[in-house]
Amino acid sequence: MGEEKVVPKPDATTAVELPGFVMSAEEAEQAAAAAGVETVEDLLPLLVPSAMRRARAPISRFPVGAVGLGASGRVYAGVNLEFRGLPLSHSVHAEQFLVANAAAAGEPALRAVAVSHMPCGHCRQFLQEIRGASGIRIVVTSDAEDGCAPEWRTVASLLIRPFGPHDLLPTHVPLVLEPHDNPLGDPATAVAVANGFGNGDLESRLREAAEAAARAAHAPYSECPSGFAVADGEGRVYAGGCLESAAYNPTLGPVQTAIIAMVAAGGGSAGEVVAAALVEKDGASVAQESTARIFLATVAPHASFHVYNYRPSDA
Amino acid sequence: MGEEKVVPKPDATTAVELPGFVMSAEEAEQAAAAAGVETVEDLLPLLVPSAMRRARAPISRFPVGAVGLGASGRVYAGVNLEFRGLPLSHSVHAEQFLVANAAAAGEPALRAVAVSHMPCGHCRQFLQEIRGASGIRIVVTSDAEDGCAPEWRTVASLLIRPFGPHDLLPTHVPLVLEPHDNPLGDPATAVAVANGFGNGDLESRLREAAEAAARAAHAPYSECPSGFAVADGEGRVYAGGCLESAAYNPTLGPVQTAIIAMVAAGGGSAGEVVAAALVEKDGASVAQESTARIFLATVAPHASFHVYNYRPSDA
Ligand SMILES: [Zn+2]
Ligand SMILES: [Zn+2]
Repeated sequence: MGEEKVVPKPDATTAVELPGFVMSAEEAEQAAAAAGVETVEDLLPLLVPSAMRRARAPISRFPVGAVGLGASGRVYAGVNLEFRGLPLSHSVHAEQFLVANAAAAGEPALRAVAVSHMPCGHCRQFLQEIRGASGIRIVVTSDAEDGCAPEWRTVASLLIRPFGPHDLLPTHVPLVLEPHDNPLGDPATAVAVANGFGNGDLESRLREAAEAAARAAHAPYSECPSGFAVADGEGRVYAGGCLESAAYNPTLGPVQTAIIAMVAAGGGSAGEVVAAALVEKDGASVAQESTARIFLATVAPHASFHVYNYRPSDA
Repeated sequence: MGEEKVVPKPDATTAVELPGFVMSAEEAEQAAAAAGVETVEDLLPLLVPSAMRRARAPISRFPVGAVGLGASGRVYAGVNLEFRGLPLSHSVHAEQFLVANAAAAGEPALRAVAVSHMPCGHCRQFLQEIRGASGIRIVVTSDAEDGCAPEWRTVASLLIRPFGPHDLLPTHVPLVLEPHDNPLGDPATAVAVANGFGNGDLESRLREAAEAAARAAHAPYSECPSGFAVADGEGRVYAGGCLESAAYNPTLGPVQTAIIAMVAAGGGSAGEVVAAALVEKDGASVAQESTARIFLATVAPHASFHVYNYRPSDA
């Protein structure tokens, strides 16, 4: 798997441009051949500079890019996202973006990740939500600048004696890259929190997308699945569900995963959101509504917003 | 420093009751002697069960306790706090509570920590905000249940190749346990966000406490120091400032550190807050107001709330 091989270093002559945030297995094979590297894994570091340029880090001005290879052969990119005017807990790290991007594409497993900077503890923890996380291999391209030769390391070596899903969940409970079908029930109440849509079609498309995202969310710890959907000015809809962490705080909220989906699809910035919908359980002990509301009020103040609280059908 | 010694195991016969969340050096020495252990460091694991019983984990029902020894000889406890109705990012981990508690007491350095469960990646990252973090020694008391003998490990071994303050800050910038005196300027605007105080004395005490907490906050990354103060029904005031992490998301917000101060002083739960004040910079790119508002609306809906936006004096 290349531990002994020299890791290709991205520079002005070797760097490869990402076509988007996902490459098919065939595109990835062709790009590796064109770049003159042996395997798609060798290609990953060469894609990192291109990923970094897509980062949106207006607070830190510290762009981070990550590129990962899935078991399917597909390649996924991730970048960091920061949102002005909100607490730092709203930030998305590149590795989290990558995992959410892979989860949205139905990727069953992650094999290797090249990332521009050493993953922080928060990300090493978030990666634990993937079954077999310990075996995922990581290479840090900035190691080359520090005079070290970049080398592949396992997640197990980066977070020894991890706290994770195995500490809290029975093994049959699906983890983040595995299929989820959370029971939600039916909408009990629907509330327009801000403005009105005046567009019944968009309204139903947003509700349906948010509901599907909530059903697919990873919420085994709180049992409060939630989904968020946003629409841009051209009526395109993007959605995401919460992706919880066993350690709670590294959790990605549904607002974050919906914005990840929007950015990954090339759909502009969060400020271009014109309408949004949230689906969550009625009386959820971990509730997203108020946080989604302040996110929109800060980042996209003119967006309309509907909240749908679901209740078990048999209640 | 005891690597070769057997770590005392807390059980029904050896566990020692914490008198509060801080023990003076003298109290700690006396408690160690009474417990029949050689050093205060040996006492730490025996205090963990007592710390765990003070955890407030209504969502996870997974109590965590941590007890640490400072360079001053004082002993600090920390517990996890969770808040129903809010996203999981509002949660406080026991290790974070401990660090905030030590910072509030002016502790200059942390030497050793005994904790009930293996620290998560988020906490291993948060600990990087302490200068010399790599040398802090950690012992996990639940290792005894897993059949392993608990052993002391360094933070360096728990988070190899850390991302941290050294990646972003010049070395002269103070870290989390070092004195801070953030320039804030003067109040530009004061807004009563919820209800009125009708109590000018309490109002000024809250503003002064929040201002002092903002001046002492650790906000080198965003340069947006903030402080929060809360009062309980008996007019006691508790305050805290944000404690930022180089990795952003593990940051403790000012609301969290104020609640930590309240719990550490034996002052009841967050639901008993009757009045609160926030001090932050006018137009801060990392702003706490909306999040503080939803925290109060969810946890202490009848609390009054004033926000003070400060502006540089020379502006
Ligand atoms: Zn990270
Ligand atoms: Zn933790």
